[in-house]
Amino acid sequence: MKEIQGGCCAAKGFSASGVYAGVRKNPTKKDLALIYADCDCSVASLYTTNLVKAAPIYVTMRNLERGTARAIIANSGNANACAPGGEENALKICETLAQELGIKPDEIIINSTGVIGVPLPVDAITGTIPQLTRALSRYGSDDAASAIMTTDTVPKQVAVEIQVGGKTAHVGGIAKGSGMIHPNMATMLAFITTDVSITSEMLHKALLESNRITYNRISVDGDTSTNDMVAILASGLAQNPQIEWKDTDYRVFLEALNYVNGKLAKMIARDGEGATKLVSCLVKGASSEEAAEKLAMSVVSSSLVKAAMFGADANWGREICAMGYSKAPFKPELVDISFVSDGEAIAVCKDGAGLAFDEDTAKRILKRDEVQILVDVHDGAFEAEAYGCDLTYEYVRINGDYRT
Amino acid sequence: MKEIQGGCCAAKGFSASGVYAGVRKNPTKKDLALIYADCDCSVASLYTTNLVKAAPIYVTMRNLERGTARAIIANSGNANACAPGGEENALKICETLAQELGIKPDEIIINSTGVIGVPLPVDAITGTIPQLTRALSRYGSDDAASAIMTTDTVPKQVAVEIQVGGKTAHVGGIAKGSGMIHPNMATMLAFITTDVSITSEMLHKALLESNRITYNRISVDGDTSTNDMVAILASGLAQNPQIEWKDTDYRVFLEALNYVNGKLAKMIARDGEGATKLVSCLVKGASSEEAAEKLAMSVVSSSLVKAAMFGADANWGREICAMGYSKAPFKPELVDISFVSDGEAIAVCKDGAGLAFDEDTAKRILKRDEVQILVDVHDGAFEAEAYGCDLTYEYVRINGDYRT
Repeated sequence: MKEIQGGCCAAKGFSASGVYAGVRKNPTKKDLALIYADCDCSVASLYTTNLVKAAPIYVTMRNLERGTARAIIANSGNANACAPGGEENALKICETLAQELGIKPDEIIINSTGVIGVPLPVDAITGTIPQLTRALSRYGSDDAASAIMTTDTVPKQVAVEIQVGGKTAHVGGIAKGSGMIHPNMATMLAFITTDVSITSEMLHKALLESNRITYNRISVDGDTSTNDMVAILASGLAQNPQIEWKDTDYRVFLEALNYVNGKLAKMIARDGEGATKLVSCLVKGASSEEAAEKLAMSVVSSSLVKAAMFGADANWGREICAMGYSKAPFKPELVDISFVSDGEAIAVCKDGAGLAFDEDTAKRILKRDEVQILVDVHDGAFEAEAYGCDLTYEYVRINGDYRT
Repeated sequence: MKEIQGGCCAAKGFSASGVYAGVRKNPTKKDLALIYADCDCSVASLYTTNLVKAAPIYVTMRNLERGTARAIIANSGNANACAPGGEENALKICETLAQELGIKPDEIIINSTGVIGVPLPVDAITGTIPQLTRALSRYGSDDAASAIMTTDTVPKQVAVEIQVGGKTAHVGGIAKGSGMIHPNMATMLAFITTDVSITSEMLHKALLESNRITYNRISVDGDTSTNDMVAILASGLAQNPQIEWKDTDYRVFLEALNYVNGKLAKMIARDGEGATKLVSCLVKGASSEEAAEKLAMSVVSSSLVKAAMFGADANWGREICAMGYSKAPFKPELVDISFVSDGEAIAVCKDGAGLAFDEDTAKRILKRDEVQILVDVHDGAFEAEAYGCDLTYEYVRINGDYRT
């Protein structure tokens, strides 16, 4: 497996585009993205667990009942959630796009991201669709990745090349998300493409497996949005023998998918609203993977841990405290905690009690832009790592006045 | 019932004091508090649900097995959690205090609050105990309330006078807590006293009932601490016929206890770290009280809601989104939301969709220092209100460098 350029257009059969449609006020910020497949694709998709789901989520759910898809369209600047006429507007966009591309309306995955409760300016979107389809390009991943950004500061894309069934194949994707990020894919969109030949059923299984250890292990602020979605299209153009069960080819594909999703998830965590650093927590020695995951997620989700990370304050009591309310089993008197960055580590807690440590060394480690909280609970053989970011003044500023 | 002065010394039989013992660096900040009862008291206590509990919590749990108590001692500046010799140190303080007061060591409720993982300066505390007991006074509630403060900006105390079984009685208390506050009494201490005559069993029942609708309905940052405790001592000196079951007298006492605990809880929420305002969420029309409580708690706990409240931004999509991930049942399409302050209300969402509303009016309402988010889910007859605060730059500043 090697990382390559091309994002969501790295796989054979895909092109993409991103343009300004007028959903946002600022005309220099693209707000409408399209990914298009030359042929029928296997498809799988996962959605927000929020009881309140945006209208396009319901439209996509129904569209994907047929089991294949050809295109993904998404706008930023408006979530089309809790707004009048939401489903009608989403359907109207699908119809206009289908007509323009010569495909069927129910071959389209549609989503939106942005403010909740404001009617979608649907005419601005449908009126821009001809321009959007004309802009489709094998080099369009950058534009599509930019067009789905909201408070993101950088576009997020990644792609890899692999060998599957004797053929060269690719997995790539784009993602957005920097606030309202929490397990179960909170306000994040990830659109993945591959040219691997695989059934929709196996694609769904792979996406579930991969999602569990990637997007579901990041937290920015504990809020789970109404619009989250991760969708994957598989064109089959790599011409490998179709993956139909969990064989070696499946595992090769899954590994590539994990790499792409894992890297996008980490990009999302690092670009958390106002974040200055990527903070991860690796919990080792847990009695189960579930316990390790709960402990790690609880640590990276704690506002107090996140604020201390911003201040580069080695206040490890907050980590053990967050573990304590995670509801996961562990023995406090066996816990070791270190802070790790750039190959340098400092032990701050052993057997559940504080160690004397050099504050200057701790400060130096915690000031770097990537910090790992390493926890060993000495209670078993399982581990899990979760990703988040620090809590900063900037997070408060951004979210104190998001709409204006 | 009428509110009176005196805090934890309003009830007959209680005196209190607060002094500087040297746990904190700043000698102008009191850090050791004592409440003393002239006679044996009925007692009840509730503790943090965090798996990691501070050493004094364990000592108190054992002490209270005898069912009566005479004194409460607590220091601020150090949590005595995850620190070597924690229980020994707590026991040593109990022994010194018992000797000084002429009571038994296991008649003492002990707790600590402050930084985790640093050894408790036990000699500073035991050495100050003679001064602490000499300072005991019927007017000592202020000093005790001040001595348990950590990042609190104001001491918190309240008391009421009631008529029970033909006698005049009192319920009062002190509390602290401004960060690490979340359901199940996160880093908060509340010490309540009463002169009502009541068995320890009924006192425990009343405390459980009251805690559920007061301290368990506040959230500052979602973190649940290692040291939370609410304890109540009942001297019986009001000489009412002892309360032994859930009769009218019990209900009168419970009402007073709810008032005291409710007011202290709101004081804690309003004084949340860095908070500029008290934010409450009243959910009406829920299918059960549990559903109403979950919905209200999810709203006041959301970082995005809290940041929008700081910015006085009427971004109601965040409220409905937080309700959606609360796991409580409701129908999004029936939800109405208004913002209320000072008798003025503005409706922003009806039947789950946005209303056109006057932004200037909304801004004026949200800028006040007490804001209620009023939600009607039109799904039943139950309601619950939860209390929190806004998320501010100051919260980040305070918690970015708590230890130094």
